[in-house]
Amino acid sequence: MTGRSERAETFESLAPGGTIGILGGGQLGRMLSIAAAQLGYRTAIYCPDPLSPAFQMCDRYWQAPYESRAALAEFADAVDLISFEFENVPALSLDFLKARVPIRPGIASLATTQDRLFEKDFLSVLDIPVAPYHDVASAAALHDAAQTLGYPVIAKTRRLGYDGKGQVRLEKGDNAQDAWDSLASELVIAESVIPFDREISVLLARGLDGNIASWPPVENDHSKGILRTSRVPATISDSVADQALSYAHAIAEALDFVGVLAVEMFVTDKTGEVLVNEVAPRVHNSGHWTLDGAVTSQFEQHIRAICGLPLGDSRALGRIRMENLIGKDITHWRDILGDPLAHFHHYGKAVAKPGRKMGHVTWVDPD
Amino acid sequence: MTGRSERAETFESLAPGGTIGILGGGQLGRMLSIAAAQLGYRTAIYCPDPLSPAFQMCDRYWQAPYESRAALAEFADAVDLISFEFENVPALSLDFLKARVPIRPGIASLATTQDRLFEKDFLSVLDIPVAPYHDVASAAALHDAAQTLGYPVIAKTRRLGYDGKGQVRLEKGDNAQDAWDSLASELVIAESVIPFDREISVLLARGLDGNIASWPPVENDHSKGILRTSRVPATISDSVADQALSYAHAIAEALDFVGVLAVEMFVTDKTGEVLVNEVAPRVHNSGHWTLDGAVTSQFEQHIRAICGLPLGDSRALGRIRMENLIGKDITHWRDILGDPLAHFHHYGKAVAKPGRKMGHVTWVDPD
Repeated sequence: MTGRSERAETFESLAPGGTIGILGGGQLGRMLSIAAAQLGYRTAIYCPDPLSPAFQMCDRYWQAPYESRAALAEFADAVDLISFEFENVPALSLDFLKARVPIRPGIASLATTQDRLFEKDFLSVLDIPVAPYHDVASAAALHDAAQTLGYPVIAKTRRLGYDGKGQVRLEKGDNAQDAWDSLASELVIAESVIPFDREISVLLARGLDGNIASWPPVENDHSKGILRTSRVPATISDSVADQALSYAHAIAEALDFVGVLAVEMFVTDKTGEVLVNEVAPRVHNSGHWTLDGAVTSQFEQHIRAICGLPLGDSRALGRIRMENLIGKDITHWRDILGDPLAHFHHYGKAVAKPGRKMGHVTWVDPD
Repeated sequence: MTGRSERAETFESLAPGGTIGILGGGQLGRMLSIAAAQLGYRTAIYCPDPLSPAFQMCDRYWQAPYESRAALAEFADAVDLISFEFENVPALSLDFLKARVPIRPGIASLATTQDRLFEKDFLSVLDIPVAPYHDVASAAALHDAAQTLGYPVIAKTRRLGYDGKGQVRLEKGDNAQDAWDSLASELVIAESVIPFDREISVLLARGLDGNIASWPPVENDHSKGILRTSRVPATISDSVADQALSYAHAIAEALDFVGVLAVEMFVTDKTGEVLVNEVAPRVHNSGHWTLDGAVTSQFEQHIRAICGLPLGDSRALGRIRMENLIGKDITHWRDILGDPLAHFHHYGKAVAKPGRKMGHVTWVDPD
């Protein structure tokens, strides 16, 4: 163990041939694993889900709970470096791993971004505009916050929310107690609902040397809280694009971030105002287009960054449209493949549950 | 076994979610496995080499000799369809597998292309120009063939040659017995050495429905029998390109080929003559540029073809240069990654033996 800890202290870059451990075995872990292999790394996946799609494309895997010390220790011992596709790994498990192997991005980035309140406070300190918010700890506090912020508000669990889960909208006259009960959490944040014209995201990679490479801002359409379509270029002015990029850069630098970071934002066309909605300390669905539509994909770029390698070029190859295949959408695979210009990606999940991300399709320079 | 055989008879297309078995665990098998996963297939690799790089990127693997009936039977039972990265699997093993699971491309294509004499005879029947050749069965016959063909000649083993191995050049005055002994084979072909200006290859995919998609012809530079560089577009006239494409199409159709086929050719600039040198019934090193430089890569296209899916578009994305990283070349990985436009591929092989293909780099629109 001493050798391992010493290495953790002195770790700079990891040469091809090394082993990268990935926490989380979903499609992001799978695509990270493939990108790592293309650069010559071995990969090990750790995930509690026995049907993890990333298990199908890796050198080794551990199927165990995130709390299993024995499995975590074995995993740490088998890898040179740990990253994750899933930011909600328990903090104690991360501390346990960190004592053994470097984790990139670092745990501090995770702590800030896995809690909506910490994230908003952090953004506010950076003078990055966010929707007005209140920390609420009871149904009564939620009611008061809604009165102060003005209806409608959205109450969100501070932790573990994704794809619109862990959220409830509160209109004037709605019962705050019902909303509170539906969230089933003691850690809640209430936010003003800001009218906006479009949702965009900025993805960037920051290397170990502090260099940053950003992809062009992406325009996103959500439905029921789930991303449906991403488009590049976003239909925003150059000044809005510059503003969005500068916020994302500021966030990456303030976190001393290493790896790929995604920042979701709202844009108001009339005023050109940009508000940051959410920060994801990892590769992101709105960056899947980069696999086929950019010089360097978000997955390869993340591996380059965490291994201390130089970053690749992140220009787009043309106009891009990416569509998620959600639930039964995947059954149309034959039609999609019938379009010779469609880049079809299937995540290898066996069961197409409603709302489940099963794959995506990208068109470069679509008509 | 009955169910398996019946399925083999009626097999048409294999939907994502199915399992593709690949014979051979080198870099071609690895890149095929990754392409299959991106389309939603599971993959199983079969290879005798315990250090097979494809074992690092697959769902399951069998490390066993190609002659092991027990392992072949298990492998066949675990997969829905078999393809290969290595065309020299013993015929008996292929027959054994074929009785259990469909093999694509078919065994007939393999039988024709894995023997240089059968291949030349086959091409001659199609009226496709090849270098004059003689089947030789002894040192004396090699001497006579050289006298008839005119020096210099190249004597090649009919089977199992690759990357310039199993070949010897015979100049006037050289001892035919020495050349014969160095080949250590009873099955030898003697060929005229044809002066040519450039080497090209045509890669195409032919689908189960007979549709063909060809990539633009590739110009190749070899050194010591090993491919060093591929360039697209090839510096050939449109009429030479058309001729080359038409030969490759004729070969694919005559073989009733399914999958990706590569045809190596010689071109004489002055006369515009095109000679076919070799046919490879599989994805090919001179097609590695398609991973980064074409709408659809040769690996994805092969998976589409053998699974009975529609083929993707095979246009190039620009001017391309692909360089192989052979032996110690791979130690320059950091310099290569320092060029943000270089697409670096490392095959995950541990030991950089001289002459060993360790990786490749592709530039799209290089300066």
